[in-house]
Amino acid sequence: MTDIDDLPVRDELRGKSPYGAPQLDVPVHLNTNENPYPLPEPLVERITERVREAARGLNRYPDRDAVELRTELAAYLRRTAGDLPLTAANVWAANGSNEVIQQLLQTFGGPGRTAIGFEPSYSMHHLIARGTSTAWVSGPRNEDFTIDVAAAERAVAEHRPDVVFVTTPNNPTGSAVDAATVLRLYDAAQAARPSLVVVDEAYVEFSHHPSLLPLLAGRPNLVVSRTMSKAFGAAGLRLGYLAADPAVVDAVQLVRLPYHLSAITQATALAALEHTDTLLGYVEQLKKERDRLVTELRAMGFDVTDSDANFVQFGRFEDAHRAWRTILDQGVLVRDNGVPGRLRVTAGTPSENDAFLDAVRKLTKEQSA
Amino acid sequence: MTDIDDLPVRDELRGKSPYGAPQLDVPVHLNTNENPYPLPEPLVERITERVREAARGLNRYPDRDAVELRTELAAYLRRTAGDLPLTAANVWAANGSNEVIQQLLQTFGGPGRTAIGFEPSYSMHHLIARGTSTAWVSGPRNEDFTIDVAAAERAVAEHRPDVVFVTTPNNPTGSAVDAATVLRLYDAAQAARPSLVVVDEAYVEFSHHPSLLPLLAGRPNLVVSRTMSKAFGAAGLRLGYLAADPAVVDAVQLVRLPYHLSAITQATALAALEHTDTLLGYVEQLKKERDRLVTELRAMGFDVTDSDANFVQFGRFEDAHRAWRTILDQGVLVRDNGVPGRLRVTAGTPSENDAFLDAVRKLTKEQSA
Repeated sequence: MTDIDDLPVRDELRGKSPYGAPQLDVPVHLNTNENPYPLPEPLVERITERVREAARGLNRYPDRDAVELRTELAAYLRRTAGDLPLTAANVWAANGSNEVIQQLLQTFGGPGRTAIGFEPSYSMHHLIARGTSTAWVSGPRNEDFTIDVAAAERAVAEHRPDVVFVTTPNNPTGSAVDAATVLRLYDAAQAARPSLVVVDEAYVEFSHHPSLLPLLAGRPNLVVSRTMSKAFGAAGLRLGYLAADPAVVDAVQLVRLPYHLSAITQATALAALEHTDTLLGYVEQLKKERDRLVTELRAMGFDVTDSDANFVQFGRFEDAHRAWRTILDQGVLVRDNGVPGRLRVTAGTPSENDAFLDAVRKLTKEQSA
Repeated sequence: MTDIDDLPVRDELRGKSPYGAPQLDVPVHLNTNENPYPLPEPLVERITERVREAARGLNRYPDRDAVELRTELAAYLRRTAGDLPLTAANVWAANGSNEVIQQLLQTFGGPGRTAIGFEPSYSMHHLIARGTSTAWVSGPRNEDFTIDVAAAERAVAEHRPDVVFVTTPNNPTGSAVDAATVLRLYDAAQAARPSLVVVDEAYVEFSHHPSLLPLLAGRPNLVVSRTMSKAFGAAGLRLGYLAADPAVVDAVQLVRLPYHLSAITQATALAALEHTDTLLGYVEQLKKERDRLVTELRAMGFDVTDSDANFVQFGRFEDAHRAWRTILDQGVLVRDNGVPGRLRVTAGTPSENDAFLDAVRKLTKEQSA
């Protein structure tokens, strides 16, 4: 039998494992920050209508520029982020925000270039940097997982990165980064060399704070990335997008695979955007549940990181992996992201969260026994 | 207004244009090798059923490994290519064969590595090499667009590429490459250095010759790439796949973006695979029409390249672009791929092909006038 190491793969891939959370068959999944609410049935019907229409023309290539979809995404951003002057020209969409980030790194990163992120953060930034041969610098955070602005500025000045990632709300820790911090990092980055600053707002709809989209004005090297996986309850759709100066949108088209976004994906995303109000209603419920998780975990004595996302980081554990396993043994799958002494739980439905809290209560008894 | 050149994009992207055929509004589109037959209505209904089911679970991430889809693709390959022992472990799928090729180049090409193709051929091989920072070598062809095996072997020995592309049937020229040629290139490539040989069979269902899938046996560095865009009449779906040793499938998973293939795409592709017989019936009709185009164009005195694909390359023109424009003026869009003196026409429906042949007849009159 042939092994990967028998193949002429790139040296830096040897011995590596594919990224991905375990897909285990348990009653309660609170490990991948999915939205626990299935799409409402009227939206499911609208998707099938739109897909039926798209399927009738499926022998033809899709709209390569996804203009209708980008127009509706821009309308959504205008509506929810303070009536900014964003149009389709400011928006680009791809198969998940991972593909958006990959296209950005192919355009602005790549061999001989460097990206920085402040870790722990979304680990795909680092992995996509590797996949695009972009050097990676792990920037610092404070003990409480906030960004130490002065230390971050020093790291930017020292490494002069071509791409800077700021994830807000941050994953897996949960807290939002304020506008002043992002502005200082943007200025520090531009002072070091002309560079792209990517603000990853995958979870922004769950935040106590508004989107940083208004910072785009007058900053052509700033990009805000978004996804329909979380707030739109459509992780299975794989629809990520960005907002930026139109020149950035033009630039990523130099590396995007032609017709990258299928007619079926475009149709489904358009249907979901028609149901924005309903879906944002679920977001409000999830924010309440997220706040309840923070409150109850703190009441149990856990150290809980402030959360602006649809998940909560909690600890400390002497052995986080053993705690993860104990919770799993009670039928609740949470995430061990490798942050020492911490675990991450996604806000689920009220009953899923109850099951999780019950499991954790047993954990504390066991630990204090 | 900000221009691309004002942004910190990679130097090798400066001054480049996005890839893509013109999307013009004309009566007859014979320029992108699409299948002219819309999906049959029972298949459209089956797609909506499967998508409805997928949409009900869309809040969850899709099956990251697309196991059901890969199983059915393997069954299709077994059935149509001589009952080979292929299973899901031999098959990998992505958003179009372009993404398959990108993943292969990220794994086996990349910075410091080299790929070769024998040109003119599918231009995305070269463009994806650029997008993945893989050096590109343009290998030779004979005057009649066949591969000169001895010259190709010399090019491989000289450049010692890490990845070798062989497109059969070739695009945009149309002819198939025989197994003996592929074997000689495989052996020459392995003699130069351990390297991946990618046989791009996007158009193989239209060929007079069988698939080269049987060559996979005992050759772990050989890959066959395929697509549902052409024979399955699903260009809008963006579903490409490959067959290879399971180790190759394991290797591309080191660079694939997690959950790259949406639940909706998987559902739609599975529906299409249920209707394979009907769709391959359309392929038979298109092969006849393709052969008719070759015969009639030759009867008009054109120099026509043998075609095993769903398109035909014809010439010679003193000014191919002017001929393209004259045909377009009669409402028929064909493709000017930049091959000197030649144009490429996709086999459409009988009436589309009649319209094309009428337009070309006027062209010959105009040229002989």
